[in-house]
Amino acid sequence: MTPTELAALYRRELLEHVVPFWERHGIDRQCGGYFTCLDRRGNLYSTDKYLWLQGRAVWMFARLHGQVDCSRGWLDLAAQGAAFLRRWGRDKDSGRVYFALTRDGRPIHIQRKIYAEVFYLLAMTEMARATGQADYLDEARDLFWTIHDLWRRPEKLGRPLLSGTPRGSTLADPMVFLSMIEELSSLDDDPRYAALAEEMTHLALRHVKADRRVVLENVGPDGQAVDSPWGRLLNPGHAIEMGWFLIHQARRTGDQRLAATALDIIDWSMEAGWDAEYGGLYYFLDADGRPPLPLEWSMKLWWPMTEALYALLLAWRTSGDARYLALHRQVHDWAWRHLRDDECGEWFGYLDRQGRPTHELKGGPYKGFFHLPRALLYSIQLLSDPAAQP
Amino acid sequence: MTPTELAALYRRELLEHVVPFWERHGIDRQCGGYFTCLDRRGNLYSTDKYLWLQGRAVWMFARLHGQVDCSRGWLDLAAQGAAFLRRWGRDKDSGRVYFALTRDGRPIHIQRKIYAEVFYLLAMTEMARATGQADYLDEARDLFWTIHDLWRRPEKLGRPLLSGTPRGSTLADPMVFLSMIEELSSLDDDPRYAALAEEMTHLALRHVKADRRVVLENVGPDGQAVDSPWGRLLNPGHAIEMGWFLIHQARRTGDQRLAATALDIIDWSMEAGWDAEYGGLYYFLDADGRPPLPLEWSMKLWWPMTEALYALLLAWRTSGDARYLALHRQVHDWAWRHLRDDECGEWFGYLDRQGRPTHELKGGPYKGFFHLPRALLYSIQLLSDPAAQP
Repeated sequence: MTPTELAALYRRELLEHVVPFWERHGIDRQCGGYFTCLDRRGNLYSTDKYLWLQGRAVWMFARLHGQVDCSRGWLDLAAQGAAFLRRWGRDKDSGRVYFALTRDGRPIHIQRKIYAEVFYLLAMTEMARATGQADYLDEARDLFWTIHDLWRRPEKLGRPLLSGTPRGSTLADPMVFLSMIEELSSLDDDPRYAALAEEMTHLALRHVKADRRVVLENVGPDGQAVDSPWGRLLNPGHAIEMGWFLIHQARRTGDQRLAATALDIIDWSMEAGWDAEYGGLYYFLDADGRPPLPLEWSMKLWWPMTEALYALLLAWRTSGDARYLALHRQVHDWAWRHLRDDECGEWFGYLDRQGRPTHELKGGPYKGFFHLPRALLYSIQLLSDPAAQP
Repeated sequence: MTPTELAALYRRELLEHVVPFWERHGIDRQCGGYFTCLDRRGNLYSTDKYLWLQGRAVWMFARLHGQVDCSRGWLDLAAQGAAFLRRWGRDKDSGRVYFALTRDGRPIHIQRKIYAEVFYLLAMTEMARATGQADYLDEARDLFWTIHDLWRRPEKLGRPLLSGTPRGSTLADPMVFLSMIEELSSLDDDPRYAALAEEMTHLALRHVKADRRVVLENVGPDGQAVDSPWGRLLNPGHAIEMGWFLIHQARRTGDQRLAATALDIIDWSMEAGWDAEYGGLYYFLDADGRPPLPLEWSMKLWWPMTEALYALLLAWRTSGDARYLALHRQVHDWAWRHLRDDECGEWFGYLDRQGRPTHELKGGPYKGFFHLPRALLYSIQLLSDPAAQP
């Protein structure tokens, strides 16, 4: 397939196979917001609303409106989700963003983590971009510094920090900051974003252990490797996602060394994470080959594969090295064969090690309208933009 | 196999294949307590200590001392674990029992659940029985009423109860009370135990929906079925475990109807839970066949199988119905073929749906010296006791 053919294939996949599934089944036209607990055919198996996915769907629909087609009603679909988030998503007293709501907006659960806030923020930034309304940007900016404060003072999240609790850094934190800054800094002129992106890049790189060719999910307070299941945990798909976050950061700053490190991260994570026997990326591994604790470690999930699809195309365009195109082809073929649901639209999310669906569902508390359409959109844009040639 | 032959096989399994693995690899002779993060061959992959398993191992070693052989040093192994628990296991201010400690006893994590307390209590009761020391019984008795208070006022556990949070009852709660009362009431003469056991039996039976032949893990505040993933969740091994808890309760009270219901529970859970294609009990199911949310739903774990081994023998002895012996044989054969590690001792804990180990580990944060040896011991005692004939 030529780049042009691949872009056309991904465009058809996005617009004919993925977006229509969510337009048809994922919009709550009565109470607002999105349904994500959808079975193979799009039937609801739960009406609960998960805020990570509400925020991500707002972002995705608003981005499609702005960058693909402004005539398809996608801004309305985004706006009704943003309105639902604003009406029900935050605790009035603390300002915290809930993790789950009932269909009509009553709070079910709040996490002792910052990620619901992060995806709420991404919804607001993309609504600000799509509409030009200052109130969205104002809320995003305020929330950004709230998240920054929660990250610096995690005791505010309510999880007790006991004397034996492992201290240190988890890869997701610098990653979500890089992601938020990428979005926010394109709308809001504040020099602190660039400085913070540098700091987060530095923190992220402490997880990269070049001598062992691994990216550790968790490191100690000074970035040191910790010899425990927590400290040895690898999440190859997550590291590959960080790889493309860092290439984006390197492009913004013109940092060639950072781009080279990001390519290493993608290489090592594909090496370590790809299952030589059955194909696909493992969900978790132990850096020393000890038993990984998560029961689902050997499962093959959709999102590490969709992250790899875009990351490998970007690595190819960044380096000019055709090896990345071959790796992309390997991931693409496996994903198309095992993850894509030819019959009912969208992709399966959860496969066993051998690549058979363990769940036929199309969405749930952690799978919604985000990783797959984002990877397709970013890949289409990369393949279609001659300026993105290496 | 005759019952006598089966008892002899289980006795050899317990004493030659299971106990030695934990004696050899699971005792921290330096800091006290037990290691449970052991790989296939018994090598440590983490030194953290999980309190559910510390308490359970104390119970198991003390029980083996009292009921199998008092000359094997098992009371010392129990006592050192109990001493570790007492020295490090509870928060000095709140009295709460931690979930995990470092090797040397520093607290890592505390759950917003009562189960660490429950297994700490079981450790104390069995130490009281084995030693006759009143201080163990005193601590168990105090802790029992503390747990009862936490159960009645769950807001004390620190998990926010929001307006949309599902209210209701989870099967584990009446089960752990029945289990604690079985142990404590045999040592401590207090009429409140019998009354509370009646109440807990009543609460447990509200999870049993005879018209649908299911046992729901979670029900609403009045025992009603709730149409959500939370409300439709089945855990067949857990229900089977409850089946034998209820047969024990029926024996204590002479309640024939309760015994008959317990047999139904075991029947329905074997029907719903057994994988007709690959064998073994599913970990989770949805009562209406909708997508189960847990990623690991189709995995085959050791403990549902060991619970079924004992429950089916007890069902046979209770009913005289040879059908239960045939079911026992089916579970036994599958477990022996897939779970037992012929080479290195102990059993694997986590298999994929097809029955292949996904993890070769012998223990971890939730697998220790408990379900397998308890099921073997209880089965041996049932098979060896002529008075237990139906």
